[in-house]
Amino acid sequence: DDLTLLAERPHRRLNPLSGEWVLVSPHRAKRPWQGQVEKPAVAARPAYDPTCYLCPGNARAGGHRNPDYTGTFVFDNDFAALVPGGDDVLVNDGDLLVAHAEPGRCRVVCFSPRHDQSLPDLPLADVRRVVDVWADEYLALGSDPQVAHVQIFENKGEAMGASNPHPHGQIWAQRTVPMHVARELDRQRAHHARHGRTLLGDYLALELARGERVVVANDHFVALVPFWAVWPFETLVVSRRAVPHVAALDDAERDALADVLGRLTRRYDRLFDVSFPYSAGLHQAPTDGAAYPEWHLHLHFYPPLLRSATVRKFLVGYEMLGEPQRDLTPETAAERLRALSDAP
Amino acid sequence: DDLTLLAERPHRRLNPLSGEWVLVSPHRAKRPWQGQVEKPAVAARPAYDPTCYLCPGNARAGGHRNPDYTGTFVFDNDFAALVPGGDDVLVNDGDLLVAHAEPGRCRVVCFSPRHDQSLPDLPLADVRRVVDVWADEYLALGSDPQVAHVQIFENKGEAMGASNPHPHGQIWAQRTVPMHVARELDRQRAHHARHGRTLLGDYLALELARGERVVVANDHFVALVPFWAVWPFETLVVSRRAVPHVAALDDAERDALADVLGRLTRRYDRLFDVSFPYSAGLHQAPTDGAAYPEWHLHLHFYPPLLRSATVRKFLVGYEMLGEPQRDLTPETAAERLRALSDAP
Ligand SMILES: O=P(O)(O)O[C@H]1O[C@H](CO)[C@@H](O)[C@H](O)[C@H]1O
Ligand SMILES: O=P(O)(O)O[C@H]1O[C@H](CO)[C@@H](O)[C@H](O)[C@H]1O
Repeated sequence: DDLTLLAERPHRRLNPLSGEWVLVSPHRAKRPWQGQVEKPAVAARPAYDPTCYLCPGNARAGGHRNPDYTGTFVFDNDFAALVPGGDDVLVNDGDLLVAHAEPGRCRVVCFSPRHDQSLPDLPLADVRRVVDVWADEYLALGSDPQVAHVQIFENKGEAMGASNPHPHGQIWAQRTVPMHVARELDRQRAHHARHGRTLLGDYLALELARGERVVVANDHFVALVPFWAVWPFETLVVSRRAVPHVAALDDAERDALADVLGRLTRRYDRLFDVSFPYSAGLHQAPTDGAAYPEWHLHLHFYPPLLRSATVRKFLVGYEMLGEPQRDLTPETAAERLRALSDAP
Repeated sequence: DDLTLLAERPHRRLNPLSGEWVLVSPHRAKRPWQGQVEKPAVAARPAYDPTCYLCPGNARAGGHRNPDYTGTFVFDNDFAALVPGGDDVLVNDGDLLVAHAEPGRCRVVCFSPRHDQSLPDLPLADVRRVVDVWADEYLALGSDPQVAHVQIFENKGEAMGASNPHPHGQIWAQRTVPMHVARELDRQRAHHARHGRTLLGDYLALELARGERVVVANDHFVALVPFWAVWPFETLVVSRRAVPHVAALDDAERDALADVLGRLTRRYDRLFDVSFPYSAGLHQAPTDGAAYPEWHLHLHFYPPLLRSATVRKFLVGYEMLGEPQRDLTPETAAERLRALSDAP
């Protein structure tokens, strides 16, 4: 079909979830690279690192000390970008200087006491425990009347700005729905108003029928390279049932999410034989108390590596000024991820 | 005023040019950093590098050889992301799989034969020559009926994905107005329709009256840290006269642009005593032949460094999923850049 024609020609694709576009240049993957290379994989980490401020029993900033935790461990970020309370300042000079105060809270979630085990290495039951923490934190933080949105995410690896290699994620809760989420909300709402079904539900049905971009699937969740992926091996994890947030998942669905996360990240680690860096996170309904039947729970994985453990994609000049650009098709990326094993 | 209150509290600011928001966390600049550090400044480069595919007389990919150029040198990118012609494919499956072919052209602009001299090092007359090349290329590429937009930009330094250290920029010309430009077009058009003046003209008047974010100014151009800056030392270069593109600048204005570019980039180089990496580029009116009285010529500079030559800002998890976040205020950034010398 027409997609086959596009496999060899520069073209643009639309992200119907955000309204953004990406320029795809399938023929460009072979250009020479004399620029920055990432540091090659570091030596294996110890199970416990006495200098790590996230390991059990160790000291953190400001005189805090971690408990001897054995499962997950959640605490308020010692260097939070958002803090609760404060005055309700509003600035507006001619609609050109516009600002407002933003109260909120930042949390850190250690996935495991083990300094050396990230999501792909953890037993299924431990990943499931992380899913449960996400659900609990989403509900607890979201119940604060000053919190309209809870952003759960993970920065993994030095290339993605992780400030500590101990497996952990973060949660930023705030009064306003942040920009990228607001864009997805608009588009999901318009689709739901028009069709009476969720945008991602309809999209998932299309993808399952075609199969060409699906990477991992089980009874309740699917991981695929979205048609509009920007990062070389970007994926989207979608629930088969349309639910607005992770706390609405039942027991079997939570297990299934943990299963897909383990299998997807193990494929990632095997792609270039390196602990695969990424930023990833959940996109969930706002927590202002309104109903969001249009919101369909999903996770985005944004991994930077392009050609090897040391050559990444840079989204820079053209991408920052014009629009994102990618060098291999999402179909090729999915095929390569599908070809790998996801066994523990 | 209220802005003083915001200097110490987390808050959000609106970018009226793009409609995007940024979260500002002024108190967060002092958190510890155990993550990735950039490579420290490399040894001085030679004036000529026999292995550089951009130096005069050297061989490039595909059997091409550079002339013995003495000024600027412009050629078609050997690994172009956009290529001319091709079929007019259009895909649309339920508004969910949407794509179209995108013809275009990619050019490379060597700023100087000298391998070791980038914009801050070049004599004024040489920077002026680069400005003239931008104007000529904008007109020439834009005159192709298949080209509705010409994106001129530079990726400088390994941290910003430059694939070769020889001072050069790029030009990507294409049939569609790319996403970020389309957003700015919408906002500039709405402002112009409402006020009969350009958005950036009105914004510049506000900034010149307040002074707190201005970095460099001469008779025809101003460089400032915009109120809504995302990158730590991001700047915006605006023409005092509202013109839609660089080819509309007169002789004195072109000299003035070259002057501001030299002075701004020398301040950057002195900030952390390193050749300052950045992605930068021009935002100009589309080239589809229509009139764009609302478009006001400007350049964006997006530099990644935050605290030193080796510690950069990462726009990752929260920034990719929620919205951009910064750790020092634009006012502080402007003050620090203003305090430096811009002498050659
Ligand atoms: O064209 P270059 O310098 O090889 O490549 C660089 O700039 C391009 C345009 O911003 C990006 O698409 C590439 O990811 C980046 O590495
Ligand atoms: O909170 P961390 O891990 O210290 O910091 C990292 O994640 C944050 C949230 O995405 C970013 O704002 C920082 O730039 C990044 O280095």
